[in-house]
Amino acid sequence: MGLVQFRPLFWGEIRGEAVVFRQEMVLQVFFMFEIAFVLLSGLFSLVVAGSLAYSVWKGDGGNDKIAEVAGFIREGAYGFMRRQYSTILGMVAVMAVALFALFTFLGSGNAAVASVSFVVGAIFSAAAGIISMLIAVHSNSRTAAAAERGLPRALITAFRGGSSAGLILVSLALLGVTFMYLVFGQDPNNTPFIIVGYAFGASFVALFAQLGGGMYTKAADVGADLVGKIEANIPEDDPRNPAVVADLVGDNVGDCAGRGADLFESTAAENIGAMILGVALFPVFGAQGVLFPLVAGSLGLIASLAGIFSVRVSGPENPMESLNRGFWVVSVLSAVFLYFATSWLLGGNVWLFAAGLVGIATAIAFVYITEHYTEHRFRPVRRIVEGSRTGAATNFLSGFALALESTGPTLLVISVSLLAAYRLGVMSGVPSGGLFGTAMATMGMLMSAAYVLAMDMFGPITDNAAGIAQFSGAKKSTRDVLDRLDSVGNTTKALTKGYAIGSASLAAFLLFSAYMSEVSRLTGKAFTVVNIADIDVFVGAALGALLVMLFTSRAIRGVSKTAEFIIAEVRDQFRDKGIMSGKKKPDYAKCVDITTQGALRNMVIPGLLVLIFPIIVGVLLKAEAVAAMLMVGTIVGILFATFLNNAGGAWDNAKKYIEEGYEGGKGSETHKAAVIGDTIGDPFKDTAGPSIHVLIKLLATITLVLAPLFL
Amino acid sequence: MGLVQFRPLFWGEIRGEAVVFRQEMVLQVFFMFEIAFVLLSGLFSLVVAGSLAYSVWKGDGGNDKIAEVAGFIREGAYGFMRRQYSTILGMVAVMAVALFALFTFLGSGNAAVASVSFVVGAIFSAAAGIISMLIAVHSNSRTAAAAERGLPRALITAFRGGSSAGLILVSLALLGVTFMYLVFGQDPNNTPFIIVGYAFGASFVALFAQLGGGMYTKAADVGADLVGKIEANIPEDDPRNPAVVADLVGDNVGDCAGRGADLFESTAAENIGAMILGVALFPVFGAQGVLFPLVAGSLGLIASLAGIFSVRVSGPENPMESLNRGFWVVSVLSAVFLYFATSWLLGGNVWLFAAGLVGIATAIAFVYITEHYTEHRFRPVRRIVEGSRTGAATNFLSGFALALESTGPTLLVISVSLLAAYRLGVMSGVPSGGLFGTAMATMGMLMSAAYVLAMDMFGPITDNAAGIAQFSGAKKSTRDVLDRLDSVGNTTKALTKGYAIGSASLAAFLLFSAYMSEVSRLTGKAFTVVNIADIDVFVGAALGALLVMLFTSRAIRGVSKTAEFIIAEVRDQFRDKGIMSGKKKPDYAKCVDITTQGALRNMVIPGLLVLIFPIIVGVLLKAEAVAAMLMVGTIVGILFATFLNNAGGAWDNAKKYIEEGYEGGKGSETHKAAVIGDTIGDPFKDTAGPSIHVLIKLLATITLVLAPLFL
Repeated sequence: MGLVQFRPLFWGEIRGEAVVFRQEMVLQVFFMFEIAFVLLSGLFSLVVAGSLAYSVWKGDGGNDKIAEVAGFIREGAYGFMRRQYSTILGMVAVMAVALFALFTFLGSGNAAVASVSFVVGAIFSAAAGIISMLIAVHSNSRTAAAAERGLPRALITAFRGGSSAGLILVSLALLGVTFMYLVFGQDPNNTPFIIVGYAFGASFVALFAQLGGGMYTKAADVGADLVGKIEANIPEDDPRNPAVVADLVGDNVGDCAGRGADLFESTAAENIGAMILGVALFPVFGAQGVLFPLVAGSLGLIASLAGIFSVRVSGPENPMESLNRGFWVVSVLSAVFLYFATSWLLGGNVWLFAAGLVGIATAIAFVYITEHYTEHRFRPVRRIVEGSRTGAATNFLSGFALALESTGPTLLVISVSLLAAYRLGVMSGVPSGGLFGTAMATMGMLMSAAYVLAMDMFGPITDNAAGIAQFSGAKKSTRDVLDRLDSVGNTTKALTKGYAIGSASLAAFLLFSAYMSEVSRLTGKAFTVVNIADIDVFVGAALGALLVMLFTSRAIRGVSKTAEFIIAEVRDQFRDKGIMSGKKKPDYAKCVDITTQGALRNMVIPGLLVLIFPIIVGVLLKAEAVAAMLMVGTIVGILFATFLNNAGGAWDNAKKYIEEGYEGGKGSETHKAAVIGDTIGDPFKDTAGPSIHVLIKLLATITLVLAPLFL
Repeated sequence: MGLVQFRPLFWGEIRGEAVVFRQEMVLQVFFMFEIAFVLLSGLFSLVVAGSLAYSVWKGDGGNDKIAEVAGFIREGAYGFMRRQYSTILGMVAVMAVALFALFTFLGSGNAAVASVSFVVGAIFSAAAGIISMLIAVHSNSRTAAAAERGLPRALITAFRGGSSAGLILVSLALLGVTFMYLVFGQDPNNTPFIIVGYAFGASFVALFAQLGGGMYTKAADVGADLVGKIEANIPEDDPRNPAVVADLVGDNVGDCAGRGADLFESTAAENIGAMILGVALFPVFGAQGVLFPLVAGSLGLIASLAGIFSVRVSGPENPMESLNRGFWVVSVLSAVFLYFATSWLLGGNVWLFAAGLVGIATAIAFVYITEHYTEHRFRPVRRIVEGSRTGAATNFLSGFALALESTGPTLLVISVSLLAAYRLGVMSGVPSGGLFGTAMATMGMLMSAAYVLAMDMFGPITDNAAGIAQFSGAKKSTRDVLDRLDSVGNTTKALTKGYAIGSASLAAFLLFSAYMSEVSRLTGKAFTVVNIADIDVFVGAALGALLVMLFTSRAIRGVSKTAEFIIAEVRDQFRDKGIMSGKKKPDYAKCVDITTQGALRNMVIPGLLVLIFPIIVGVLLKAEAVAAMLMVGTIVGILFATFLNNAGGAWDNAKKYIEEGYEGGKGSETHKAAVIGDTIGDPFKDTAGPSIHVLIKLLATITLVLAPLFL
């Protein structure tokens, strides 16, 4: 089917009949080869991912106690996911109908393609979240069991679980887009609706997955800690605490499913965005330009595979070092692969290759910036530790100031990368080269997506394993191994968040231009200027910034409100003396249930904000004000997400550092101050921050969908 | 002198010789009358202010203990002011030379006028800060003494002191501008350099006054509380605490001098901005248009006087009620006066009058929004109190979420006001009417400036009085009276901050257009479009948002760093057992000295950021990117300042509410949690937040000055 669509190239380029035929032959062979390469590398990664998952799954599931608690966790996670995704899919159905009606009513495009793409994007995104969670809930107990045989075994088990999920997500994103392309892409008029639909569907689901999961995990965490650790003075993850299972479920549904959907969406949206640009560049690069993003993605998958298998741990080494080394393997391989890909598919345009390198370098820079601000080896976390000596207020203030400061290097890297990629793109001599330069940078950055996801999933898996070990009364050496890995996991989770923001920033220009082209298409006039010196546009810009702040407020409020219910329930159960003495089992399921309901109820308002703001701004102040809202919302979103993620990560690691025995260790006044900072940071880094990543992207796709309303 | 300059009108409007002469006569009489009115109302206010100050000054200075501590405070405040202002004036001298060199070197305008105006603006601004502080350090002990004779006496004393300072500031702003206008205004080519110079000088000094004073006050406060209240477990403002005098000094140098300079700058900049616009509207309104802002300011001063004298307290009433009632008197009178002023001077243009009303309404809306979010009578503070039950983390999170939420109504009011004022201005049919509409709204809002300043200064005066009472061992009833007034003062301080942000937001468009006209003038091309869809401009916009975040980070860090020195010193002195037992006097002067040095050192970096960002963006990315930086920096600045101010105010009042005996009262766990929230909020609301107000305005004037570099 897909083959048919390359006729335009053949007509566009060649005049004489004889040549035409031969050219077409060559091109079609080329095209088939590329599609085959993408499909094969996607399928190959799936197979590898499957075998990794199988190797984890058939590993030692641990003793009965481990198996029992792992069973509780799985049950809770399945229950939440079932209810969460049925809520989400209900919203998807409503939205699909609304979309169909909107497009039909306004006559602004192919309603069927838009709605079908939306549903497909939503389903793929949901699948990405569910698969991540499924793998995580099976890897946790194996990691806990493996920890009894030492750190290297535990690390490898957790990392294999994470790798399997990461590979599946990125392959799915690649295959999903290829599928949409082969089915609908033959009519170039459809492309806007494919991006509208597919990317909107993916980000729509990702937002609710991240918000709901993020609220679940942090409400349970805060609730369990506040009553258990602080009021009742029992250790973290103690089996007497009725909220502890909900807390352990949270790692899986929040960190795994949420971030999975987030990065799936990034990869998918970027692929589609770049392909649309490729269509515009058809006269220059032909089919190769269109397929380039998919080929680059496949090559990135292969580089990530190599990186994953390069991770080895020798005894005394800091596990972070080996993960970093793997990341360097991926980066170097990506650069090499990118060189060949540009040579073969983009006529060896060195400027475009250089723009791609900018993206790879950006990824590396982000890893180091995030490590600097969140790892206890460096000054910032140490300063928070020093601040904790004089109490919770100074612990907080130093973390707050440092996290704000961390937006500096982050935004400077983004600015320099954007400007460099854009200028290199312009120098390439390709039409719309600046934009294509930023697309190249995004592709370069996202080549390592599967590896980064593997590192990310590693975090919640080890976190969960540590909880299971504590819960099942594992011996101290086992718990120490897992605590050490958990601390590494904290850093890798922070890295991934930085990475997600970085790639969203580089892709931002692509998404802005998608909106602006859509408006141009609808009005028939070139829409190229967003003049914030105009008062309506200025107000639109201000409302974009406001949206991020209100969204953050609501995300955090959602956690507090849900936590309140859990706190009340746990206190209630603690009144039963049998539970506190350990004779009677607490009612874990009830806490799971309360958390589920609270999270699902509270995710609605922040989600609605994202829908309502563009509609109000667009209807009252029109398309240009919406563009400003989108752009300034993106800027403030990037800064806020960075601030929230780094603040939370740094507080968490400051606490962990003290728990390693410094500054008086566990139980000291300094530690108490750090625990408060950590509790504050929880909803920052695991609910509000990551939800803002998705907010940025959803804002871009939603304005694209609703553009016809704003004219 | 000033008369000469109205010839252009006479030439512009009338052709026949005979008519000309008569017209000119009429106009000159009119003009003289207006100038005389402005000068007289300014001088009259100064006289009233003087008599208010005198009546406070000759009041009862209290017993020896009160006099002693008041003497310490004065000494400390004078010492800080001497050093702070000599540092600042040194920087002013350097800047004046740099300005002269820049203008001479680039040949971009009258270097002498620009530098002289800069110095005059700086001196007036410094005078505003110093006078506020002088009045405050004399009113505090009188208020403490008056409190022994009941709440109404104490309230009137504090409010008279505050009123005197408020009236002097606004009169100075008015007279200063009138002076500049009469001296340099005769050559219309000079006007850009007057605004450049005078407003830049005023905001330059205001920034350092606010930053230095804000760091001083909060570092001393945090330092005194952390060691005194939390570690050594002695009450607030206990004479054994060596940092307590520094803390009391802080109220005067931070809250009084800082906010004084801030609102002085707002009034002055707005007057000049509106007058420049009046010059552009010369063909329509003639001299009356130019003088209108001054006349409106004078009428506002009279309305504020009426409001001040309407404040009466009957026994049981909440003192806030009587202050609110006074504010309504000012607002209604301002509306009436504004009606007559537009009738006489602006040809009775009802649309412009309506735009002015929008400003008055905005002021009222801001008062109620701020009260809602920071007073304990309303839901938000109650919710923070509820959050405190489960500890410091939930106290913090509820305050954080609510303060973020408070940016919503704030920004919506700003947006609606801006859009309404602009559209009303357009409907007025005047050229550049939209812009003039926003100027009218700003004037309307600032008519109540003197009254609002009076309420504001009331805050630190009562705060200080409460401290003096505690320090001098006053009886409980006296302390209760002052605690109650102190809580009212907290609210009035929060109101003023909201007001300062509101007026800065309404004036923003005036300042943007000043920058854009300056660029147009320098390039000779109309500069009307700031296209953030352009990548350089987008990056400029992002850096504007970043500037606010880094500035906030540095302002808070400055407080922490200074506080660390004080904490070390206080701990050191506490090791001397004589001090703790009350037998030996602590070395207050040393703490004052350390705080002074720390605050002055730490105010430099955030100040430099404001200088460096525009230079880097302007030189690398050019004038349009600077405009975007200015605009988005303003948006994010408004939101951040609102968030920081309201968070701090709400935490403070949540603590005060608990101290009134609710939720277990003083000493309970809930109270401890609330104290931590309050400590966190201190640098938010008294250092970072108010400094951002000035940052916004300084950014506007600095880009205006440096515009020639960005072409």
